[in-house]
Amino acid sequence: MREFVLLNNIYQSNNRLPATVTIPPGDDMGAIQIGDDQVLAAVDQLIDQVHVDLHKHTLAQVGRKAVTRNLSDIAAMAGQPLCALATAALPRDFGSDRSDELFTAMRDTAASYGCPLIGGDVSIWDGPLHLTVTVLATPAGIDPVKRSGGKPGDVICVTGKLGKSYPTDHHLTFEPRLDIARAIAQYPATRPHCMIDISDGLARDLGHLCEMSNVSAVIEQSKLPCRDNANWQQAVGDGEDYELLFATDHAAIGSPGTWEVMGVPITVIGRMVKSDNQPTVKIKLVDGNIVDLNDQGWEHH
Amino acid sequence: MREFVLLNNIYQSNNRLPATVTIPPGDDMGAIQIGDDQVLAAVDQLIDQVHVDLHKHTLAQVGRKAVTRNLSDIAAMAGQPLCALATAALPRDFGSDRSDELFTAMRDTAASYGCPLIGGDVSIWDGPLHLTVTVLATPAGIDPVKRSGGKPGDVICVTGKLGKSYPTDHHLTFEPRLDIARAIAQYPATRPHCMIDISDGLARDLGHLCEMSNVSAVIEQSKLPCRDNANWQQAVGDGEDYELLFATDHAAIGSPGTWEVMGVPITVIGRMVKSDNQPTVKIKLVDGNIVDLNDQGWEHH
Repeated sequence: MREFVLLNNIYQSNNRLPATVTIPPGDDMGAIQIGDDQVLAAVDQLIDQVHVDLHKHTLAQVGRKAVTRNLSDIAAMAGQPLCALATAALPRDFGSDRSDELFTAMRDTAASYGCPLIGGDVSIWDGPLHLTVTVLATPAGIDPVKRSGGKPGDVICVTGKLGKSYPTDHHLTFEPRLDIARAIAQYPATRPHCMIDISDGLARDLGHLCEMSNVSAVIEQSKLPCRDNANWQQAVGDGEDYELLFATDHAAIGSPGTWEVMGVPITVIGRMVKSDNQPTVKIKLVDGNIVDLNDQGWEHH
Repeated sequence: MREFVLLNNIYQSNNRLPATVTIPPGDDMGAIQIGDDQVLAAVDQLIDQVHVDLHKHTLAQVGRKAVTRNLSDIAAMAGQPLCALATAALPRDFGSDRSDELFTAMRDTAASYGCPLIGGDVSIWDGPLHLTVTVLATPAGIDPVKRSGGKPGDVICVTGKLGKSYPTDHHLTFEPRLDIARAIAQYPATRPHCMIDISDGLARDLGHLCEMSNVSAVIEQSKLPCRDNANWQQAVGDGEDYELLFATDHAAIGSPGTWEVMGVPITVIGRMVKSDNQPTVKIKLVDGNIVDLNDQGWEHH
């Protein structure tokens, strides 16, 4: 039972949504209309031994990550942070000093991105540390960028570098790409047709874009911006990059195909192509072979 | 380490909130300004063996409760539901049929209260079932009722009955008091000065109103509307009633002091009085004794 499959089952039967729901479940954030305004909302869990390791990571790092991975969802929609809520289920022996330290990290991180913590819920239990952060955001003048909208011929772009996020602590220190997303989404010439942040790994998240856009993708090994000597399998399969992955007009990037926005390189890694039947994600290797990344067989662990 | 104490510690240091935060943490919901509109938000956890028991309760009941206890927070502010988000950490052997059943219950319950589920996050882990629900709400023309605002001389009122919620399954079947809250909050004559929903038990939740309003409370044993032969200790100490507790002008209720709104009895159980030093909550027993409910000594378990 894969989590995405499970969520898909849930959302597919969610077909009686009122017209006030402007972005239904299944995107990086949902959205709802309130008067003249739209509010975007998303929630994520952060679990000890799943997303972090309290034996290795400090509480400041854990609290920061609980917030920044949600801010990365806001970036994926080109939204502007509004406020946050947090829950914590704390192990019985956690103690009030450590919980203060954790909540201080969450609150200060959120505040530093203009996203004040306005509520929460704390439980004490016999399980491991379990956190959730809910974030609200506004479009603030820029139409939210969805996962759907990619077209055959679009170039596929990614910010920063890919792979080895967990071993290099990138997953603890990354900057959510809020400003870059808004910078490129505000101009018709550069605006992404579809966008997502990479949390499950390039292959899977590109698959999400392809499914929602009903197109296929071909990327090239030679173009992958690999972090810290990551091999292509790591660049494509590792999760938690928290980079923006988007498809846009070729004209947006000019030539020779490397682009920099606010000091961050944006790399063209491939093209969207017409989908014959089921959307596919394929990689052209430097040896000339083509590997189907939808196929579980290639998967790197 | 009590949960309320912990949250208080967290919120007290939250003193650099921007002006857009119209209701800071510490109330039933926080609120933020967006354009001309205000959005209320709250989040709660529902944990197996803490708030529910999967050995006894059906998934339909668990899913319903995960949502209705958050709707009760909306009722406490006299708000109108807008949308919801949910997270689930599912035990590894939970299975997709059961998770579908659970999410269907959450989604359908939320939808039936005009609160569509617009997003979520699912994890699979080795821990017990852990759910969160985030709800957004709007004032929809009625100024939110806070926990602060109670005055000496106010009558203390409660909807429905108190105590024995858990043994009688009331905690699974209760109706969040959304309509009643809006009915009384919309008219200046009946509008509560302060309000909360009873989740921690009458004594503690009345204590929250007193602290936030800086008044003390005296309630009377003879007036408590006890559920199913609950004794006064159960009516005052048991949690999960999910009834509205509020203080308002005496004139609002007329005489002889029992009031009915939309078929639900509202009972006057006491008075707010001037607080000398620390706010206190006391009960006048039928034998003439007065018991201080702030004092842990009385507590019923």
